Amino acid sequence: MEGVKHIVAVASGKGGVGKSTVTVNLALAMAAEGYRVGVLDADIYGPSQAQMLGVGEGVRPQAAGENRFLPLEAHGIQAMSMAFMVDVREPMVWRGPMVAGAFQQMLTQTKWDDLDYLFIDMPPGTGDVQLTLAQKVPVDGAVIVTTPQDIALLDARKGIEMFRKVKVPVLGVVENMSLHTCSQCGHQEPVFGAGGGERIATEYDTRVLARLPLALSIREQVDGGRPSVVAEPEGDIAASFRDMARQVAEQIAASVGDSGPSISFSEE
Amino acid sequence: MEGVKHIVAVASGKGGVGKSTVTVNLALAMAAEGYRVGVLDADIYGPSQAQMLGVGEGVRPQAAGENRFLPLEAHGIQAMSMAFMVDVREPMVWRGPMVAGAFQQMLTQTKWDDLDYLFIDMPPGTGDVQLTLAQKVPVDGAVIVTTPQDIALLDARKGIEMFRKVKVPVLGVVENMSLHTCSQCGHQEPVFGAGGGERIATEYDTRVLARLPLALSIREQVDGGRPSVVAEPEGDIAASFRDMARQVAEQIAASVGDSGPSISFSEE
Repeated sequence: MEGVKHIVAVASGKGGVGKSTVTVNLALAMAAEGYRVGVLDADIYGPSQAQMLGVGEGVRPQAAGENRFLPLEAHGIQAMSMAFMVDVREPMVWRGPMVAGAFQQMLTQTKWDDLDYLFIDMPPGTGDVQLTLAQKVPVDGAVIVTTPQDIALLDARKGIEMFRKVKVPVLGVVENMSLHTCSQCGHQEPVFGAGGGERIATEYDTRVLARLPLALSIREQVDGGRPSVVAEPEGDIAASFRDMARQVAEQIAASVGDSGPSISFSEE
Repeated sequence: MEGVKHIVAVASGKGGVGKSTVTVNLALAMAAEGYRVGVLDADIYGPSQAQMLGVGEGVRPQAAGENRFLPLEAHGIQAMSMAFMVDVREPMVWRGPMVAGAFQQMLTQTKWDDLDYLFIDMPPGTGDVQLTLAQKVPVDGAVIVTTPQDIALLDARKGIEMFRKVKVPVLGVVENMSLHTCSQCGHQEPVFGAGGGERIATEYDTRVLARLPLALSIREQVDGGRPSVVAEPEGDIAASFRDMARQVAEQIAASVGDSGPSISFSEE
């Protein structure tokens, strides 16, 4: 893709597992590591990157010549989202081909400026956007986000199977909302279960890139347009994302020139 | 629809807010109130009703004459899901028209047995399944599930707007994962924010049907195939769902013969 060196899809089988939150923090962490980074919000029905990056309602991208748009900039990264094009309160009641068309427009008409990494925030499921991505875009790898409970793992498996079918290497699994720590007594509770990320990583011979807690602060920070990596750059959450960013960069560097369909690393 | 008196869609703009958990518990609560109840799992990409109802992998519905299927029975309610038709581990990598087709088959080929209420567990978003539903099915009302945080409300609004556009009355909003109560010290924490359900209900002149806590037990019980209403019929959670079921029944009874597009009740 023009203006983009590497493309990483951030996906989950199921919605609501924190995929957009992981995407934006991972992108900001990669930028903090010194790379030039962009985020493409491919969730057409429910785009959330505008709010998470603190881009105000109604801010629109500038045209760049005929038929192309400049991405918006926020916290030092470039971003494109359906939310920059339409009223975010209006539902896009669209059948699949319209969705695939809108996604393809964002893919082909955004004028990214010399990116090392473009992170694509995928919508949930395994439908039109996923098929379009697989057919039109040379994706270097996929990061799978899941919560630890059984019902979410069921869908995470499907996400992994889908990327395998289309020969996109799965770089690893992010287990999100792992443990809730009580802000009063410090008691830890596996509200959404425990150990699911590890199980699924073992099952598919991939690694756990990070285990993130169920923490009020992470949610408040993205809701407020200042993701944790920006809001608390020296905090534990930012450190987890910086570590995740380094693992992603290492794996992609290692795969350059490797045309094989899958990469696996031992976690010993 | 043949064999069905009333149809209620349970929807959310965003995935992962507990829509399937609310659907199955609301259906079981309605059955506990003495009605004949069915659940249609319209989430083609990520069906979860089989696991939530404790229906084993590989259990398949029986044929009923040419081209029709009997729903499965579990905990006294009837159920149909894509999970009864296919291997739940395989991703359905389908474009929209395939998904709409599969949904329409489940709608037309399931032989429901004399239901008072059919609850449809909708997939997230406002796409093919939602359009097919609006065009093919006489839906009596919609229940909107949301978590309280801003990002989820953004999508819940879209869900409500969509039902308004197609003249389906919104029966109310369920605020899920409202407060987490520490199992050790009892401290309550608004992990996903607070008050969002109330705000959106006011904004759209509808009611809050229930506020449900972020509780380990609710998740464990559906993961284990015994939803809270069945697992702890005398508990607080079951009581909330029984109350929700009565509100749904009352509103639908009140709307019989009313051809107007929207129903609203004062919550004073």
